Amino acid sequence: MSQVEFRTSPAQYRHWRLDVDGPVATLTMDVDAQGGLVPGYELKLNSYDLGVDIELYDAVQRLRFEHPEVKAVVLTSGKEKVFCAGANIRMLAASGHAWKVNFCKFTNETRNGIEDATENSGQAYLAALNGTASGGGYELALACDTILLIDDRSSVVSLPELPLLGVLPGTGGLTRVTDKRHVRRDLADYFATKAEGIGGKKAVGWRLVDEVVPRVRWQEVVAERARGCAETARRLPGGPAIELTPLRKTVSTAWAGALAADQVTWEISYPHVSAAVDADRGVAEITVTGPSADAPASMAGAYAQGAAFWPLAVARELDDLILDLRTNQPGVGTWVLKTAGDASRVLCHDQLLIANYDSDWLAREIVLYVKRTLKRLDVTSRSLIALVEPGSCFAGSLLELALAADRSYMLFGVFEPDDPDEPDAGGPRATPAAVTVGPMNLGPLPMGNGLTRLATRFIGDPDALAAAQKAAGEPLGAEDAERLGLVTFAPDDIDWADEVRMAVEERASFSPDALTGLEANYRFAGPETMETKIFGRLTAWQNWIFCRPNASGPDGALRAYGTGKRAGFDRKRV
Amino acid sequence: MSQVEFRTSPAQYRHWRLDVDGPVATLTMDVDAQGGLVPGYELKLNSYDLGVDIELYDAVQRLRFEHPEVKAVVLTSGKEKVFCAGANIRMLAASGHAWKVNFCKFTNETRNGIEDATENSGQAYLAALNGTASGGGYELALACDTILLIDDRSSVVSLPELPLLGVLPGTGGLTRVTDKRHVRRDLADYFATKAEGIGGKKAVGWRLVDEVVPRVRWQEVVAERARGCAETARRLPGGPAIELTPLRKTVSTAWAGALAADQVTWEISYPHVSAAVDADRGVAEITVTGPSADAPASMAGAYAQGAAFWPLAVARELDDLILDLRTNQPGVGTWVLKTAGDASRVLCHDQLLIANYDSDWLAREIVLYVKRTLKRLDVTSRSLIALVEPGSCFAGSLLELALAADRSYMLFGVFEPDDPDEPDAGGPRATPAAVTVGPMNLGPLPMGNGLTRLATRFIGDPDALAAAQKAAGEPLGAEDAERLGLVTFAPDDIDWADEVRMAVEERASFSPDALTGLEANYRFAGPETMETKIFGRLTAWQNWIFCRPNASGPDGALRAYGTGKRAGFDRKRV
Repeated sequence: MSQVEFRTSPAQYRHWRLDVDGPVATLTMDVDAQGGLVPGYELKLNSYDLGVDIELYDAVQRLRFEHPEVKAVVLTSGKEKVFCAGANIRMLAASGHAWKVNFCKFTNETRNGIEDATENSGQAYLAALNGTASGGGYELALACDTILLIDDRSSVVSLPELPLLGVLPGTGGLTRVTDKRHVRRDLADYFATKAEGIGGKKAVGWRLVDEVVPRVRWQEVVAERARGCAETARRLPGGPAIELTPLRKTVSTAWAGALAADQVTWEISYPHVSAAVDADRGVAEITVTGPSADAPASMAGAYAQGAAFWPLAVARELDDLILDLRTNQPGVGTWVLKTAGDASRVLCHDQLLIANYDSDWLAREIVLYVKRTLKRLDVTSRSLIALVEPGSCFAGSLLELALAADRSYMLFGVFEPDDPDEPDAGGPRATPAAVTVGPMNLGPLPMGNGLTRLATRFIGDPDALAAAQKAAGEPLGAEDAERLGLVTFAPDDIDWADEVRMAVEERASFSPDALTGLEANYRFAGPETMETKIFGRLTAWQNWIFCRPNASGPDGALRAYGTGKRAGFDRKRV
Repeated sequence: MSQVEFRTSPAQYRHWRLDVDGPVATLTMDVDAQGGLVPGYELKLNSYDLGVDIELYDAVQRLRFEHPEVKAVVLTSGKEKVFCAGANIRMLAASGHAWKVNFCKFTNETRNGIEDATENSGQAYLAALNGTASGGGYELALACDTILLIDDRSSVVSLPELPLLGVLPGTGGLTRVTDKRHVRRDLADYFATKAEGIGGKKAVGWRLVDEVVPRVRWQEVVAERARGCAETARRLPGGPAIELTPLRKTVSTAWAGALAADQVTWEISYPHVSAAVDADRGVAEITVTGPSADAPASMAGAYAQGAAFWPLAVARELDDLILDLRTNQPGVGTWVLKTAGDASRVLCHDQLLIANYDSDWLAREIVLYVKRTLKRLDVTSRSLIALVEPGSCFAGSLLELALAADRSYMLFGVFEPDDPDEPDAGGPRATPAAVTVGPMNLGPLPMGNGLTRLATRFIGDPDALAAAQKAAGEPLGAEDAERLGLVTFAPDDIDWADEVRMAVEERASFSPDALTGLEANYRFAGPETMETKIFGRLTAWQNWIFCRPNASGPDGALRAYGTGKRAGFDRKRV
């Protein structure tokens, strides 16, 4: 398969229309059946594949940055009698396990982003089901704050995955039915075993939808409810829209980073983010560069910089890189995270955003976007190792990269000037590295579990958490950072190269599946939320079911679907 | 494989010694290497299989009922230099997927039971690691409140599953390391990738153990710490020990229940619990019979009845039945739950226990045992369908069976006297069924998520919860029970047989794996706890890893272990 590209724009959409009318936007799903990302299937009945969801993700992002006036988004279908039939079954049946799982992860993240817009950004989503919403189609509706269903005696909502395909709804449906919509668990059980779905008053009575609306009043009621949402949604005031200009991205084979040049297969680079990929060893070295100047004195300066404003630019680049590597480089199992630049400039950009978080929509949108991008890292099935070296700027928002890592190494002292690994002995790398806790580490960027990365790190150890918080604002050398538990190990120049090399090589020698499971458990200490349940409990069960013979074996339900043959099950319960 | 038997007693133990010395008991693991449950492996180095864990479970139960004077339990090893090497690897490698998963589930439940004893029963467990504790051995220690490790320059604790076997620690290790012992996640990551383990001061500094003790002072310090635990543990006062006399259990082919006789393969019966198994259709019909008399006027009467006291007898029988069916009948995927008897007698037994829960150790032990048995039902990978018929006694503690079910049917009215399905038209079945909410439904029997089954059922719907609570004490007919959301459906005699038959047959037609995943998600709405994370997140990932080629394929790590061959991994991350 060719490389999947996540960059797109409304002018390129094949499957969605975005119409804005004052405070109400309408996002219309009208999937081009011939527009599949990969040949071999038709996207009938508004079913979707990754390509359809990439456009949805783009639209959701643009609604936040390019449409500050929009307070309500109506999600509806351009087809007659069908809202959305969910993920395309033939696409799923033809896809490998890793593809399916990665696809579900991305669709989950987009749906969580819709909920984030509703909850934190004053942009409420309303699902206007003008036809049947089944499987992933209903799960998309579940991500919206309000669900209206047309009452035409045939349109229903359904989760037919279990009875028809022998798998689970894969994008949060089971969790949201009980934990968000509070459908009683026994009714939810019945619902998820009835392929034909539920509509009309019963759908309202069971809380599967909020309202059913007769066909004759459909347009009018949807418009009315959308206006109502827009009136109560609280979007912050602020300056003009920010255009999300095309991301500059190059892929080349030249590279002069810390990995020896002959190990690098290629480099992906953006203005502030780059990744050197060593495909043989399965390692990507990702470097995030700090701002080249101080932050503007006020948000007015940020508006003037637009999409080039450093925090926004970095979030976009990192977001695209994570998606690119996750989707296109499944064999690259370890990501080494580095930063380069001036910590004080990172912190003053952080400060500008935090000072305006409660009053300016753009400041808030950027912080929320950084939050979502870091969450993407948390659920990425790659080992994350942060390297804190002289010349780095792990401070505030960028310190989160080290806190998101499974493990971190911080150099004690500097690289010796005659160290052959050290190309730049006279520059900023002549000063020992420091990490700095800042206000961005103390609240605005929570993980999916609702806690900050610091609070998760020090779960059950309030003294350690308080000590780390108290150190906020001070650049901390390796000894202090290790003592405070902000980094894992602090070797000196003599041990550095060996320790780091061994950590990376060792990681590549372990079972990739076991690492995925280990990381998915360790990264989410403490409380679970709907979001972590979706990525943890639900996804893990789905992954297991996907690779069992009852689903994907020769007689499995996924293979049997549509053939007229009945699936053959091994009836033993596990 | 022959049927696994869960009933045992100290006189039959091959692997454990139980010594009681006043308030301190010592449970010594000394596994008979030749005593495996199944031929084909040797239980070297105190490694264990299901047979070893069945004895441990029995000992833990007897400590609670037969040793009311014991306030501290020292868990240690009878071997030199080794505490426990965890689950036997050759046993795991030779076992099928379903066996491995069921084995892990039972060991998890026993470890949760140890924590329940420490937390709720005033019996604190202290792990005295007189040698290395690796894998499941260390996980057993993690279930204890305090971990002492001998400091002999060789003994360590370790979780070598990932580096050596390409799987995860399967009995809660990953969850307890971070969420219980509060080991920092990056240190936990390092620990779980180091096959050689960690001992000495570093093990204390990282919180992996509480204390390391020099060999010369070992006996003395262990005894001192155990005395300390016993002094602070708060066990309730009460009457004499209750002997857990051998359970009476028969297996026969005769049966006269509601399933047609020719459908029944065999019947398992105890004095108060029976199960008619239809192996062809994959259904077991489980009937729990209420007390044959009112409860004694005080706990003195309960002490006099001993193990025959109805609530204790029922808990023991149901516990054994669940374990038996889970382990020996994996193809029986649907359990139909019924009760028979007098609801008021159930409620007066409940009342006696609740009135004495805070003052009498036996009352508390029985309630806690009922709680654990119901939790076993919650994590059982079988579809549970409750049938509420005339003559049943779904009240209080027995109503929990219906609330634990995935779905429930309650007959509206009675069976017509001329109904051929109705063998007993003139008896108690001539009166319509009722269900009764009682005090046992309102707190003492929480699920693993920390909520009552009622609160989980009505999560996010405080009005419905309040209405159900307000109805406590009233026998509720089908109409009221359905309106209050206590049962799922309330068909009348005309529809009953068809609806119930269809529900059961439909269940048997679905993918057993997808049902397991569905149920594991729906049953645990609301908050997650360490316990639900172990059964949900951790177990699901482990199950996935177990059945991936990287673990169990021809070149997988589980197969390669011990052969000197390196495992061959597909390096793609999923």
